[in-house]
Amino acid sequence: MKTAAIIGGGVIGGGWAARFLLNGWDVRVFDPDPEAERKIGEVLSNARRSLPGLGNVALPAEGALTFHATIAEAVEGAAWVQESVPERLDLKQKVYAELQQHCAEDALIGSSTSGFKPSELQEGRGNASRIVVAHPFNPVYLLPLIELVGTHVNPVDVIARAKEIISGIGMYPLHVRKEIDAHIADRFLEAVWREALWLVKDGIASTEEIDNAIRYGFGIRWAQMGLFETYRVAGGEAGMKHFMAQFGPCLTAPWTKLMDVPEFTDELVDLIADQSDEQSGMHSIRELERIRDDNLVGMMRAMSANDWGAGALQNVQDKAREGEAGLLSHIDQIGDLSKPVLTLNRTVPLDWTDYNGHMTESRYLDAFAQSTDRLMLLIGCDAEYIASGGSYFTAETHIRHIDEVHAGHSIQVRTQVILGAGKKMHLWHEMYEGDRLLATGEHMLLHVDLATRRSAPPAEHVEAALVKLATAHAALPAPDGLGRAIGAPR
Amino acid sequence: MKTAAIIGGGVIGGGWAARFLLNGWDVRVFDPDPEAERKIGEVLSNARRSLPGLGNVALPAEGALTFHATIAEAVEGAAWVQESVPERLDLKQKVYAELQQHCAEDALIGSSTSGFKPSELQEGRGNASRIVVAHPFNPVYLLPLIELVGTHVNPVDVIARAKEIISGIGMYPLHVRKEIDAHIADRFLEAVWREALWLVKDGIASTEEIDNAIRYGFGIRWAQMGLFETYRVAGGEAGMKHFMAQFGPCLTAPWTKLMDVPEFTDELVDLIADQSDEQSGMHSIRELERIRDDNLVGMMRAMSANDWGAGALQNVQDKAREGEAGLLSHIDQIGDLSKPVLTLNRTVPLDWTDYNGHMTESRYLDAFAQSTDRLMLLIGCDAEYIASGGSYFTAETHIRHIDEVHAGHSIQVRTQVILGAGKKMHLWHEMYEGDRLLATGEHMLLHVDLATRRSAPPAEHVEAALVKLATAHAALPAPDGLGRAIGAPR
Repeated sequence: MKTAAIIGGGVIGGGWAARFLLNGWDVRVFDPDPEAERKIGEVLSNARRSLPGLGNVALPAEGALTFHATIAEAVEGAAWVQESVPERLDLKQKVYAELQQHCAEDALIGSSTSGFKPSELQEGRGNASRIVVAHPFNPVYLLPLIELVGTHVNPVDVIARAKEIISGIGMYPLHVRKEIDAHIADRFLEAVWREALWLVKDGIASTEEIDNAIRYGFGIRWAQMGLFETYRVAGGEAGMKHFMAQFGPCLTAPWTKLMDVPEFTDELVDLIADQSDEQSGMHSIRELERIRDDNLVGMMRAMSANDWGAGALQNVQDKAREGEAGLLSHIDQIGDLSKPVLTLNRTVPLDWTDYNGHMTESRYLDAFAQSTDRLMLLIGCDAEYIASGGSYFTAETHIRHIDEVHAGHSIQVRTQVILGAGKKMHLWHEMYEGDRLLATGEHMLLHVDLATRRSAPPAEHVEAALVKLATAHAALPAPDGLGRAIGAPR
Repeated sequence: MKTAAIIGGGVIGGGWAARFLLNGWDVRVFDPDPEAERKIGEVLSNARRSLPGLGNVALPAEGALTFHATIAEAVEGAAWVQESVPERLDLKQKVYAELQQHCAEDALIGSSTSGFKPSELQEGRGNASRIVVAHPFNPVYLLPLIELVGTHVNPVDVIARAKEIISGIGMYPLHVRKEIDAHIADRFLEAVWREALWLVKDGIASTEEIDNAIRYGFGIRWAQMGLFETYRVAGGEAGMKHFMAQFGPCLTAPWTKLMDVPEFTDELVDLIADQSDEQSGMHSIRELERIRDDNLVGMMRAMSANDWGAGALQNVQDKAREGEAGLLSHIDQIGDLSKPVLTLNRTVPLDWTDYNGHMTESRYLDAFAQSTDRLMLLIGCDAEYIASGGSYFTAETHIRHIDEVHAGHSIQVRTQVILGAGKKMHLWHEMYEGDRLLATGEHMLLHVDLATRRSAPPAEHVEAALVKLATAHAALPAPDGLGRAIGAPR
């Protein structure tokens, strides 16, 4: 049974709750804050809006969310306990003492701490081997990074199991080799924060100018390649060693300056808070969260298309979820060939909507094209086949929009082969949300030789599979709307 | 006359050359390196592949690129001279002395330096008031950020003119308020670089793990909101002051540690170079550049759709370029109403292609939808009208793919109104690359009331404009393929 306990709600605990819930886990929450349910509800509502459509395959059904009055009750049956209480070591250790009295002996305990090392958390605990740092990044429901930090008291199988659970909820466990203050990423955040405070304090730039210096320049670079790979590219064909020889020593001069820490005075706090109000005060935090999530989803989906970075991680997740979503890879796996085939099962992502507040027209064709790709895969026209020089090109498309659909809604496409013979493949896609018909797509495709770019017969095994499916579908009634022209009477 | 002189080629000078050229400037290059022409050619080829399709409006015709044997010849007629020679102050000052003897008195001189302050560059120059720092970021042809740094000797009009030229080539001039070592962004890069060297040296993480810690977490956040706005969101409704009170002091503890600089030994260089080879050695630098550019274009275009960050900058550029690209905003601006209207003039962007190596089918509908949006705009169905509650929804679409097109190619759509009366709008789009017909799109749209989501008559001024256009187009012959159904004989 997949059950997680969330000890401490708030933005981080709520983000963990959303990750587990939307990946099919039951989630049991303990948080003494009377506002905890509302706060977690707000995070969940952001997560439900953005995460399910991030990938191209439907997530499992949501788990059950329950709130509990005691730690003892919350950890019941939990395989993973995530602690996100305030950053006070005495408080954390008190929480571990209590929860370890009640949780399963083999339950794993992850701490969201950024300030403590795992050895500090484990100190004095009887069952210390089950405690690790699992440090997430806000928004936890979208960003995949988890810094997983253990000590020598954590056996190999505990780390392996922790990685498995973190991967299973769509995240990336970065196993930090040795514990260190602030783990990895926060050390960078801190270094940049320190420089930024100096720049504002000394009147070199405002908070907005600093944000622009980041997001119009290296921020976009880092989003996809990080630091070292970016510099490798900058170094050119001569390689990383050349880059370091050229730029490494130059960097030492400024290193000797401004290494001290700006004093954290009220004046500095006011200066920064005022500039931040001027920069972003026209948006509420809720608005900023949604703007941020729209951007993160759009950028991660752009990287998915390139199978790179955070997008490549998402593609691995999608692939792993296909079976559960009912999406097959070969017609031999189809039980009943006589019915239209499920070729798409996904959630409408945030970047598929337009100014009219619904899924925009070109994304209907995007969805139908994904269905066509699935049908091609089913008949053996897969990546390997395409690399060998054969593929199908769409010659003609006719889409009828029957009803609207919105971001976050679940859509399915079922596909009927109207004709499959020789070079021709004539498909009929129907898009549904549950029983509600949203659109139909009629498509004529031709098999082509990718070298000559002209139509040519498919390989025998591809044609045989297509004919098999077309023959089985021939007994189906002709779909309503087949062969219609625009403006023709119904 | 728009002429720029590029003094010093290489990756940075080449990037500047590409920015100017692709925005219609003539570019004159001086670089004594016998390989300069090849090196700039390689950067240009990357730039031509990625930049023209970044926005949704065609760029002007490319300027002329010439190479010159002397600085004197290269700066002839240049309004902007960009210096990107090696980072040696004596060399830079020698270059300025020579070029200021030959360039126009009012020519602006921008330096790509990251290591020198403008006061250092200006020192001892007779015409120092024309010299500024204009520090770009690699790849210069895609990243919009320019740190523009001057001193008290630069008059206000010099800075204003520099901003105008930088904006005119699609970049963002960030005017740094006071000069400081390493300007703004490089201070952050340096701080992170220093921390990263420690982490690798101490065996906490490999170069690949560090890159993953960045690109699966805060790197994606920073790409769209930078540092301060990200923290403002993290602070929640309580605001930036609350965030600083909560997290500011916590950060001071690690600040006291590891503030010294790791020694730049051969061992450290080897360690990092070896790890980098393991991480990225399977890709050549050229491959990595193209992967990077694909990602940057995809992410920036995702942000354009949200009108945010670097994407919002791009949208401003697009808007400014519409007129030159022949795209109008109201039918009253159309000279000859009797011909099909130009509704799209753009370059196929990198993210519009698929595994078959050509523009993917859903992007044809994306392009046609942009054409429909343009036609709506022309008849007065603009953002303001839509906000008031009326819009057109597409009911039916029929696309015929006539020929292939590839990323980087220029496409135009011309639109004929087949029927425009009452709630109905029947459009015929033809997509061309030059004279080559690529596809036709036939679309039936209905005017809707956005409150009821049901069809309803448009406002009088919208209907009148549509009828005017439909009446003028009624004399055109019926397009070949109009009203065709899929599979119907021609």
